[in-house]
Parts: sequence; C-alpha cells; structure tokens
Amino acid sequence: MARRHPDRPRPEQVPAPTGDDLAGYLRSQATEFLRALRSHRETGNGLGGAEGAVDAGRALRRSARRISAALHTFRALLDPAWADTMRPELAWVSGTLALEHAQEARLDRLLPALHRLSGSTPLAVRAVAHAGPPRTGAAAPGTERGSLTVGAAKAGALLERRLTLARSRAHSAALEALGSARFHAVADRVALLASDVPLAPAASGTALGPLAAAAEDRLAGAVATLPLVTAGAPYNAQALVHGLSPDPAPHPQDGPWHQVRLVLRLHRYAREIPGTAPTDPRLHPAAEALTRHRDAAEAAAEAAQAARTPRITPATAYALGVLHADQRHEVEAARFTFQQTWQHTP
Amino acid sequence: MARRHPDRPRPEQVPAPTGDDLAGYLRSQATEFLRALRSHRETGNGLGGAEGAVDAGRALRRSARRISAALHTFRALLDPAWADTMRPELAWVSGTLALEHAQEARLDRLLPALHRLSGSTPLAVRAVAHAGPPRTGAAAPGTERGSLTVGAAKAGALLERRLTLARSRAHSAALEALGSARFHAVADRVALLASDVPLAPAASGTALGPLAAAAEDRLAGAVATLPLVTAGAPYNAQALVHGLSPDPAPHPQDGPWHQVRLVLRLHRYAREIPGTAPTDPRLHPAAEALTRHRDAAEAAAEAAQAARTPRITPATAYALGVLHADQRHEVEAARFTFQQTWQHTP
Repeated sequence: MARRHPDRPRPEQVPAPTGDDLAGYLRSQATEFLRALRSHRETGNGLGGAEGAVDAGRALRRSARRISAALHTFRALLDPAWADTMRPELAWVSGTLALEHAQEARLDRLLPALHRLSGSTPLAVRAVAHAGPPRTGAAAPGTERGSLTVGAAKAGALLERRLTLARSRAHSAALEALGSARFHAVADRVALLASDVPLAPAASGTALGPLAAAAEDRLAGAVATLPLVTAGAPYNAQALVHGLSPDPAPHPQDGPWHQVRLVLRLHRYAREIPGTAPTDPRLHPAAEALTRHRDAAEAAAEAAQAARTPRITPATAYALGVLHADQRHEVEAARFTFQQTWQHTP
Repeated sequence: MARRHPDRPRPEQVPAPTGDDLAGYLRSQATEFLRALRSHRETGNGLGGAEGAVDAGRALRRSARRISAALHTFRALLDPAWADTMRPELAWVSGTLALEHAQEARLDRLLPALHRLSGSTPLAVRAVAHAGPPRTGAAAPGTERGSLTVGAAKAGALLERRLTLARSRAHSAALEALGSARFHAVADRVALLASDVPLAPAASGTALGPLAAAAEDRLAGAVATLPLVTAGAPYNAQALVHGLSPDPAPHPQDGPWHQVRLVLRLHRYAREIPGTAPTDPRLHPAAEALTRHRDAAEAAAEAAQAARTPRITPATAYALGVLHADQRHEVEAARFTFQQTWQHTP
C-alpha cells in the first residue's frame, strides 16, 4: 500500500532490492505452487467444469512461470547448476498444464467467431461449447446452431470435434504428468525452495537492479525488431500475406511478436519483486495485446489445419477459409493495439 | 486558371452561375459524348487491348454520367419532360458500357489479391490477366502461377474463367447496345443537346446556387446515415459480420455506403460547372475510398459466388473463403479511409 501513497519516497530513497528480496520472492512463489498443488489434488481431476481444479491448475502454471522467469533473469545471483536444471522442469510443468487450457480457449475463440461471421448470437454458442463434459462424437449442428449456413455449422462441428478431442488428450497428459515421478521430483525441489533458496555466494546483499535492467533492455531490443511502423498503419493487410502460401511453415512473420511476448513477460515478472522500479503502465495492455496475437495466430492455424481434413465439403472448407482470414486479421488488429500502446512512452 | 490565382475574388464577388452556365456545361458534355462516340467507332470493337477504344468507352461513360447528373440536380431549370425521358436512357448507356470494365477490374483486383495472399509477386499475375484476348477455356495454372498452392491456383483459374466469360458477354452486350436503335435515338438526342439545351422558361438567368446547395445537403444527409464512429475505429470487424450468413441478400450494411457514393458523385459533378463554389478538397479522396469500397464489396461477392460452383475441391473453396474475407476487410479499410478523410472539415 505504501507504494500507492501520494507522498511515497522516490525510487532512489527506497533501499534497492537485493538477493534477499529475490529469495523472499522465490520462497513465496514456491509456497504458492505447493498450495495450488494441494488444492488441485483436493478438487479432483477438473475435467468438464470443476472450477476449483481449473483455478488450481492456473495457479500452478502461474507460480511455475514466475519461478522459472526469476531463475532466468537473476541466474547470476543463484546457484547456476541448480537454476539450469530447475528451469526446464518448471517449463515442462507449465507447458503441459497449459495445453488443456489452450485447446479450450481456442474453441472459445473459434466458435463465437463463426457465429459472429454468420450474424448470429455468440452467447448461444458459448453455452453450447461449455455444456457438460467434452463430447467426442459429432454434434448435431443443425439444431444447435440455428442460423448458421450448412458450411459454417459443419465447420463448427469439425472444430468442436478436433478441439474437444485435443483437450481430452491434453487433460489426460496433464493428469499423467502430475502423477509421474518426474513431477514428484519437481514438487520436492519446489518444497525445498519454499524454505531454502540456493543463492550464489555474496548474492544476499547484491542489488537486483542491473539484472532487472538487463531484462528491460532485452525487451527494448526485441521490440526494436518489430515492424511497428507498418503495424501502426491500420489495415496494412500484412498479417494475411502468405495466408495461402504453399510454404509448410506458416507465418514466420509472427515469430518476432511471439518472442516479444516472452521477453515482455520476463521483464514484467522481474518487476514483481517488491522494491524494484515502478511498473511501466504499458506492460499490462501490451502483454494482453501480445497474448491476443498469439491466440489469434494459433486459432487461424487451427482453422487452416482443420480445412485439410479429408472428405470435407467445399462449403465447410469455404467457411474455414473465411474463419482463417478473420483470425489473421485479429492478429493484425492485435499488432495495431500493441503499437498504439507502446508508442505512449511512460 | 483564374480560380487558382492567389488574389482571386471571393465567391460573392464572382457573378453567380446561372442556367446559361448550366446550358454551356451540358453543351460541352454533349460534345464530349459525340467525340468519344466517333473515336469509339474509329478504334473498332476494343476487345482484348485496343487501348483507344477503351479510352473512348471511358469518355462515353464519363460524359453520359455527367449529363445525367446535371439533369437530376438541375431538373428545375430544365424542360422536365425532356429531362425525365433522357436520364434513364443515359443511365442505360453508361451502365451497359460500365459492365465490361467492371468485370475486367474485378479480375485485376482478385488475381493480385490471390497472389498477395500466397506471398508471390502480383506483377506476374497482372501480366497473365492482361495477356492477349480473353481466354474462355481453363487456364493451366500450375505453370503460370508458380508459387501458388493448388487451392489458390485453382481458385484463380476459376475466377479467371468466370470473369473472362462475364467480360466477353458484357463486351458483346455493349457492342449490341451501341448498334441498337435505342442507342441511336440517345445519340441523336445528345447531338441536339450539343447545340440546343431545353431550359425551362426564365431559367437562363436563374442562379444555380440553391440547387447545387441542395445536392450538397443531400450528401450531408446521406453521410449522416453512415456508422462513422464505428468505421473510424480500426479493426472493428464489422465488414465481415454476416460473411457466412445464410441470408441470400449479402451485406445490406453496404447499402448506405453505396448510396453515399452516388450522392457524392452528383454533388461533385454539380461543382464542375464553372463559377460554382470551390470544390471541397475531401471530395476526391472520399470518392476514391467509396469506389474502392464498392469494388471490394463486389469482388468479395464474386469470390463467394464462385465458391458455389458445383464440384470444386475443398482446397479451391478454402482459398475462395480466404479471398472473400480479404476483400471484406478491404471494404472495412475503405470505410476507415472515408471516415479519416471526411472528419477533416475543410
């Protein structure tokens, strides 16, 4: 609360955060991880709407990402061998848990988009998409999606089948991972971290500032690689270039944006350690724009991939083509939003 | 030239244009029409690249549209029975002649768009689209469109077949129209107009100002019906709503924009009569944006229509879906440009 006070001291008057503050941050994130893990085990497997397990899974990913980010940004202040073996394990945990959520979010993005493109109400679809446990069989789109064309309805049913199946697989994989010896080893190491952070010698009193500043510099460097002048010109039609390319690796143009998203997250997490410089107000909206960019890019790829399903009708393929282009324009819109956010220097 | 002089008198010091100026304008447009008609007959049928005939056809349409617009805007100063029988005939002439040009322009818009979406060079396509007389048979897309996917190449070949056939039909219809008794009657009446304009009694000295101002008011009224706040928010995703609607009448949202395009043209032409108020500098870019809006909307409809061709492959349909959405985003971009242009009050 002190940081919100209007007469709060200027940054130079606050004691600069040190390795001790980093250790405190890591301990609290490790505690969060263990609490989320307990909660996840208590709420069951979480498939098909157990809200508690979904929240616990999100909290697990959240703390795993933060610990991993701190090990990366402040590696010089930590036992390097420990940090280097810990990070890939945490990335495996958060990556495995994120997959199920990603498949569900993709469906939640694509079905309403299909309805928007058909001029019908997206609320009705969300209800359909969320109703009960995942259905792996074909839906009966004619009745559920009243005002859709045959093509849009079939495209929706195809996407629902694909993504529900993918979500089920991701859920099984997550459950399997959480029961594995590998995960138990990670959990044991996080439990140790909650009480004892392996700082490097003399790191305890070393200032975090230079390492946090380096993370900020890496963000600035990554942003500098983005085509922001183009992105700031509305309707530049860049995101859909190569939309029909025969190149099997689609949209290499997205790479730098995905990279900025990751680097921005590292910077943002580094600023969460109490006592570090006040957070740049652009970070949160910029991060949101980049997440939307990533989600739309992946949704567009899913529509393109679904269109390669054998024996679909031309009407289904046409609807998937419209949907793909729609999501690529969402990609372009997200870049525009990022540019608009970023150009306001704080 | 006097109107460009920095010390030119203010509008109220210039003698206000009257029915006599209208008569002079109509005589000069009628003369233009007859000159273009002669030129068109001398340059032959103009199919497949006879530039002279294309230019003559454009000049014919140009003067027919202007005479028709003047008959509409300044009807109160003209023999009303004459104006009312003349206008539909001029609309028939310009409409019939415009069709061939429209089909060619549509192909010139869609093939480069397909190449842009495939990440290949649009210049190569333009060369293909313009090479020689129209081909009504299937093209060999594999060799001509090197880097296109199978779907994009097939979509391009399908569009080329459809639009080349439509252009040939429009060309035949135009030739037939130009040789018809109906057209000869129009030409005779325009020939009379070149020497004798049937003004209403006392119109000779009546000021044009109020009628020109009424045309401007009609433009303001039409613009007021447009959703300009939405159009001014980039990436509002409105143009593609109903893109997959089962409603057989596609995109009623385009109507008000098409209407503004027509009303803006009437206003612009009214200002061409020497001595009328200086032209609003927004008119030209605004008109260009609305023409782009119309062209993109029609190109999108053509892609959607082509996708209903029986027995096309899913890959072809997918490419046409992407193309449709791309052109609908062009529609949205044109609305944004119009809004940006229009908000700068002169």
